[in-house]
Amino acid sequence: MTKWVYSFGGGLNEGGAGMRNLLGGKGANLAEMASIGLPVPPGFTITTEVCSAYYDNGNAYPTELAEQVASALHRVEKSVGLVFGDASAPLLVSVRSGARVSMPGMMDTVLNLGLNDETVEGLAASSKDERFAWDSYRRFIQMYGSVVMGVPHHRFEDLLEQAKHGLGVTDDTAIKASDWREIVKDYKDVVQKETGKPFPNEPQEQLWGAISAVFGSWMNPRANTYRKLHDIPANWGTAVNVQAMVFGNMGEDCATGVCFTRDPSTGENIFYGEYLVNAQGEDVVAGIRTPQPMSAGRATSDQSPMEKVLPEAYKELMRVRDILERHYRDMQDIEFTVQSNVLYMLQTRSGKRTAAAALKIAIDMAQEGLITQEEAIQRVPPGSLDQLLHPTLDPKAERNLFSRGLPASPGAAAGAIVFTAEEVEDRAAKGEDVILVRIETSPEDVHGMHAARGVLTTRGGMTSHAAVVARGMGRVCVAGAGGITVDYKAQTMTVGNVTLKGGDWITLDGGTGAVYVGKVATIPPTLSGDFSTLMGWADEVRRLRVRANAETPEDAETARRFGAEGIGLSRTEHMFFGPDRIGFVRQMIMSDDPATRKKAIDALLPFQRDDFSQIFRIMSGLPVTIRLLDPPLHEFLPHGETELEEVATALGQSVESLRARRSALSEANPMLGHRGCRLGITYPEIYTMQVRAIIEAAIAVSKETGHAIVPEIMIPLVGVKTELEVTRKAAEAEVAAVFKEQGTTLEYLIGTMIELPRAAITADQIAEVADFFSFGTNDLTQTTLGLSRDDAGSFLPYYVDHGLLPKDPFVSIDREGVGALVRMGAENGRKTKPALKLGVCGEHGGDPDSIAFFESVGLDYVSCSPFRVPVARLAAAQAALAMKKEKASS
Amino acid sequence: MTKWVYSFGGGLNEGGAGMRNLLGGKGANLAEMASIGLPVPPGFTITTEVCSAYYDNGNAYPTELAEQVASALHRVEKSVGLVFGDASAPLLVSVRSGARVSMPGMMDTVLNLGLNDETVEGLAASSKDERFAWDSYRRFIQMYGSVVMGVPHHRFEDLLEQAKHGLGVTDDTAIKASDWREIVKDYKDVVQKETGKPFPNEPQEQLWGAISAVFGSWMNPRANTYRKLHDIPANWGTAVNVQAMVFGNMGEDCATGVCFTRDPSTGENIFYGEYLVNAQGEDVVAGIRTPQPMSAGRATSDQSPMEKVLPEAYKELMRVRDILERHYRDMQDIEFTVQSNVLYMLQTRSGKRTAAAALKIAIDMAQEGLITQEEAIQRVPPGSLDQLLHPTLDPKAERNLFSRGLPASPGAAAGAIVFTAEEVEDRAAKGEDVILVRIETSPEDVHGMHAARGVLTTRGGMTSHAAVVARGMGRVCVAGAGGITVDYKAQTMTVGNVTLKGGDWITLDGGTGAVYVGKVATIPPTLSGDFSTLMGWADEVRRLRVRANAETPEDAETARRFGAEGIGLSRTEHMFFGPDRIGFVRQMIMSDDPATRKKAIDALLPFQRDDFSQIFRIMSGLPVTIRLLDPPLHEFLPHGETELEEVATALGQSVESLRARRSALSEANPMLGHRGCRLGITYPEIYTMQVRAIIEAAIAVSKETGHAIVPEIMIPLVGVKTELEVTRKAAEAEVAAVFKEQGTTLEYLIGTMIELPRAAITADQIAEVADFFSFGTNDLTQTTLGLSRDDAGSFLPYYVDHGLLPKDPFVSIDREGVGALVRMGAENGRKTKPALKLGVCGEHGGDPDSIAFFESVGLDYVSCSPFRVPVARLAAAQAALAMKKEKASS
Repeated sequence: MTKWVYSFGGGLNEGGAGMRNLLGGKGANLAEMASIGLPVPPGFTITTEVCSAYYDNGNAYPTELAEQVASALHRVEKSVGLVFGDASAPLLVSVRSGARVSMPGMMDTVLNLGLNDETVEGLAASSKDERFAWDSYRRFIQMYGSVVMGVPHHRFEDLLEQAKHGLGVTDDTAIKASDWREIVKDYKDVVQKETGKPFPNEPQEQLWGAISAVFGSWMNPRANTYRKLHDIPANWGTAVNVQAMVFGNMGEDCATGVCFTRDPSTGENIFYGEYLVNAQGEDVVAGIRTPQPMSAGRATSDQSPMEKVLPEAYKELMRVRDILERHYRDMQDIEFTVQSNVLYMLQTRSGKRTAAAALKIAIDMAQEGLITQEEAIQRVPPGSLDQLLHPTLDPKAERNLFSRGLPASPGAAAGAIVFTAEEVEDRAAKGEDVILVRIETSPEDVHGMHAARGVLTTRGGMTSHAAVVARGMGRVCVAGAGGITVDYKAQTMTVGNVTLKGGDWITLDGGTGAVYVGKVATIPPTLSGDFSTLMGWADEVRRLRVRANAETPEDAETARRFGAEGIGLSRTEHMFFGPDRIGFVRQMIMSDDPATRKKAIDALLPFQRDDFSQIFRIMSGLPVTIRLLDPPLHEFLPHGETELEEVATALGQSVESLRARRSALSEANPMLGHRGCRLGITYPEIYTMQVRAIIEAAIAVSKETGHAIVPEIMIPLVGVKTELEVTRKAAEAEVAAVFKEQGTTLEYLIGTMIELPRAAITADQIAEVADFFSFGTNDLTQTTLGLSRDDAGSFLPYYVDHGLLPKDPFVSIDREGVGALVRMGAENGRKTKPALKLGVCGEHGGDPDSIAFFESVGLDYVSCSPFRVPVARLAAAQAALAMKKEKASS
Repeated sequence: MTKWVYSFGGGLNEGGAGMRNLLGGKGANLAEMASIGLPVPPGFTITTEVCSAYYDNGNAYPTELAEQVASALHRVEKSVGLVFGDASAPLLVSVRSGARVSMPGMMDTVLNLGLNDETVEGLAASSKDERFAWDSYRRFIQMYGSVVMGVPHHRFEDLLEQAKHGLGVTDDTAIKASDWREIVKDYKDVVQKETGKPFPNEPQEQLWGAISAVFGSWMNPRANTYRKLHDIPANWGTAVNVQAMVFGNMGEDCATGVCFTRDPSTGENIFYGEYLVNAQGEDVVAGIRTPQPMSAGRATSDQSPMEKVLPEAYKELMRVRDILERHYRDMQDIEFTVQSNVLYMLQTRSGKRTAAAALKIAIDMAQEGLITQEEAIQRVPPGSLDQLLHPTLDPKAERNLFSRGLPASPGAAAGAIVFTAEEVEDRAAKGEDVILVRIETSPEDVHGMHAARGVLTTRGGMTSHAAVVARGMGRVCVAGAGGITVDYKAQTMTVGNVTLKGGDWITLDGGTGAVYVGKVATIPPTLSGDFSTLMGWADEVRRLRVRANAETPEDAETARRFGAEGIGLSRTEHMFFGPDRIGFVRQMIMSDDPATRKKAIDALLPFQRDDFSQIFRIMSGLPVTIRLLDPPLHEFLPHGETELEEVATALGQSVESLRARRSALSEANPMLGHRGCRLGITYPEIYTMQVRAIIEAAIAVSKETGHAIVPEIMIPLVGVKTELEVTRKAAEAEVAAVFKEQGTTLEYLIGTMIELPRAAITADQIAEVADFFSFGTNDLTQTTLGLSRDDAGSFLPYYVDHGLLPKDPFVSIDREGVGALVRMGAENGRKTKPALKLGVCGEHGGDPDSIAFFESVGLDYVSCSPFRVPVARLAAAQAALAMKKEKASS
């Protein structure tokens, strides 16, 4: 016979913390607490398997269930010496849901179940407190009526308000027993009126009504949506906990409270929480009375801390707190009730905490010897470090939401709205705080993005140009805020009937994607010593190296400051947009005779050499991977008429002919067009110049600093081995020429991006001519899923919201599709060259989930934007520990 | 010791036809002919391995080679009773190259080698013909001087012309021995002057000079280019054949000729070729004298057929012809020489032939019992059937080349240049022949393409819109002719300084990609009974089913006429462009409230139902796969202002708001954008309408015709299983609704395109909810290689020309990349559902090479444009036979 019901408390604990899947989190922990001797009112848990069976059998329970519940209930009766439904001294119970993970949207709790017109009198007699009994009864009707029977909550509230008004009182505590009797009557009428049925009088009917309500709520629309959003399988099911009531509302020696074993906001090792004397659980949350602090040290003179008011129970709670932390080895979020000075524990679970608290608690607990260093590393969610590295919105500041976009680059920033990169630069130069607002950004806007406090776009996804560049710079960015209509001409942006003008202030929250009207106060980031401690510990255990994507000296310096061990991607095209270079770049593209093109390219050489020298100097011998020109040429084209005329003058050509050339270069799908090594093959002189600049810079900086610079030259968009063969040969020839001119040599590598499905599939062939692979998972995601990052805004959010895709694949790698190709590429590549160096330089290089995947594939390094480096270091450490554990257990 | 030299003729045949790789085609066949007793002058072949060794060792020969050549030469001397270099009666030899496959660009032949100032006198004495000896000597200097020593050929020709002028003669035969002596002297002076070296006198030096010239020519630029273009590995190498000379120029009982054992142009079973009395091989080709026909029956009264002039040798040749055809079991291309009435065979190989000849010869030979039916099937190149199905240019017509593009859709057509689809329709309605010229076409041009004789575009590749649609309609198309500049405003198209105006005539050759100025005469296609015979035989052996891609009744009828066994792809979007529909389509897209959208969609329902009914009726129960809407919505948008206003009026909205909507729908990379099932998911009402139309039509036509219609509903662009799950569920719901309304049911399938790498990789999951897969290899090629078919024109031709890619991957499937994904998709899919129906509906479905691949993967069917169906049937048969052979041998 299947066991559907597990008892806890009162000397029989059939469950334990390890049985979360079967008993839910709450049930498992109640049994666990009881089994380690903590005061838990007796009860029982109906398992999650009942939930699954219930839905599998057309909302019917297993036949044995009723008997098992009855038997467990009987044990509770015996244990507390009361009988359920007994008119003289009734046992009351609470019924609570409890899934594996806490889940909003489900039925939560019904207290005081078992009361009716007879038992309420028994309770009054046995407790010798008529007011308490009737208060409990009306509470029961109110909760059961709303959560089980579906009567709108405000119907009861309104009625209570009217009653208070009639009685001339403002506080519930001023309502007397006789008044409550009247209110109970009115409550029952409301139930009858709203549901067409009388309030159930029979305790067994009440019990099964509540149990069914819990199971029924598992499939309600809100719960379904939540599960989809959080990737919780429907077949997990929920458990139901039925537990003997203890009463915090039975007088002044009674209380109820919710607290954390440490401060969840700062992590400080102090008891943190609130309680209310003479109250039941929901009163603390409802805010009818003001909860009081726990410890005397934290109380102001007008407060009544529990330490003073209920010193005995407080002392007991402190003992329990200590036991729980030692037992669970983590900060706990607990609920308790004090009945007649006796403490009862109603719940414990790991407490949610801020990033700062997570960090401090992990380090403190490790230093207290409560957990190991490795456990400390695993306790801090890597993504939460963003909160420590960037300014955040002051949680207390008032906000006026304008719209929402994607949280593309973390941090918070406020500034005046500006619509062009030029104006941003002008106003920033005068010291103004400005936010660049664009429909989308292009490489031409990079200088403006740099000067702005933050960037807002209305198109594009998590790997759109704006998002990638802003993350790289550490600028706040909200991208793809499709609800906003930008009108460049009118210099306005509009949502519904709210229109903001250029110069108006807005505030961006890059951590949530929110856009607020006006200036919202922010809190600057503070990096504690704990941060360096954690990073140090993480570095000791991780296997994956962490590099940064960086192309400016500033980026490179940030990267080193955050502990990057090299540069995994330096995009040379970003260097082409400097105002002193773009003219030559355009001449190079627009000229149709090779001689003029050569002249323009030669003019670019010193700039590129200088770019690379600076980066090599900053990185002092750490590896630097430089990617040769990648984007389609038309990205560099002059858009405006003035710019077109400038280029025409410089080339001595007509504006007409340049316009024709510009249109000839335009493409239907530039992402799949004439770019990457395709440019290097058809315009070989561009790559030749870049290779020369890299090698000349490396030789010069090697001499100057004494560091051996080993440049890594990366050829983008290779799909076929021959492409790398041809470009490699040309590069080698130019390197040899430089060596000969300079009478010296140095070590260098030539490798490729693996960013096309074909490259991953034929990686064994490509590896024959590659010294390293760097997986370009941004473009690999675009091609594998056939998904343009610039256009996905019109359907990708829908996909994620409706569970068609578990996550945005540009944020977290799609393991089954893109990931399978990365694995294939790594395995195929190493089949040919076992020591092939493998890295990843897509945005996924900074995503903890993706890093765990890259660890499992055995890559050598990840490369991410400089501000993500700490996140990546921690995530890499956690991934290494997870792999270690997996290996140990297999 | 390696054997580098193989003898043939004169009683020792060390080689044979099976040794083509080692001896080259010519050498292998000379040995084979000699071994079956045919008269072959003795000689020897230096193997292709010598060529490889020569290049591997820095242009040096293996040490044993000289000795082996000397020994083989000695055998030849003994066999013919003459000595090489002997002053009294010298042995002369020819030196010829001979690779595995015949290869232009290499040194071909040097005749009469061994002559010098002494041996020429010996030859004169032994032949008793001084004129013959000196003519042979000057021929030798001329050939050796130009092909071995690099003297421009015209330098000799000019000198000969001057001499003839001086002598007052016009014909070479009128030049006497003494005159030739003078000319020989002058020739030697030319060699000295041009090369700075004397003409080599020593026969051994001559011999090794010629051998080295053959090996050296293997790596000359023209040969390299040819090899790259034809995918011939450089390490194959060439062989060298040295053979005792026989002389066709030793008098009136001597001759030389080239002929085919059947007519290579029609396939008729007659001896076909030309010969010249008293001549050497090159005279036939050079055109100095007019060659004469072989058989008397084919000769006009003023001709001298060999049958009459040299009856004995002719009789012998007829015997040889018969032996050769029986031995080689194929039509042969032979070279022969008659010396003093004795026939000598100098070469045999399978003869090149037209498509018509290939067909006739294959069928005839099978019916003659020379070959089996299966062999006959393998003898006809499937691609050549295009020539039989479409008009071709009259080979005799004069041509004036304007430019070249890609041979996108076969056939030849002439017409007046017209630049808009509207004008095409107007003028075609008046009975004019017109060619639609566009930079690129879009779905809006389809009606114009249909009315035109042919289509010319200056952008886009082999799977561009123009190419795909034209092939589907059987219209001639030259695509991506990038050398042509089109100016719509001026109504001109220009190449260099040649400008054609609208209304001027051009002629397109869709088989070669050529564009000619003016009208070039064409020959209509003729389908013989042999064609049906071959198709019947092919159908008996093939395993792959062949379907057609068709969306109009006309297409469907063509498909059935050509033997299609169903429709593998019916693109519903093409049906949206009818002038009676496009208005509703635009209203559907442009409306932003669901109610208006629903109204527009409802208006489309009867049109779609009628479209499908017509196709179901024509296909009479054969399977029909209908793909739901695929392209991004903006393809249907009104481009012009007038059209925009029309839609605005119909919707009661402002033109401004529609312009905004149009711009909101535009995409950076539409190929990777909001299309396919992504539309079906975000605008479910479109797919719902299409599903309803399909099912209603199927029910109606089933009732009407009694054929059981089993519609196959295909969801495009699925990358994730959930996409198919959601769209399938919605479709099933609508089908159920129709069934209920109509009180009937029918069988139907719901499947998906596999056209994204992710779909292939996760095909095991997708198969759980798919009844069939159809590989969309066009889009799969685009995504796997990251290659936009619309933009690849700027580099893909370069890639193919320079061997970076072996072939255009849009024409012939990239087996290693895209093919690997197709195989993965098929295997993964069948892992889940062993009986899963698998097909392919990309353009590769009509490409013979790709079909061979699909056979090896085990797909169930291929689907191609209607006019490719016969090609596909034949290719499928050949693929089945090849697989059978492979299995038998493994």
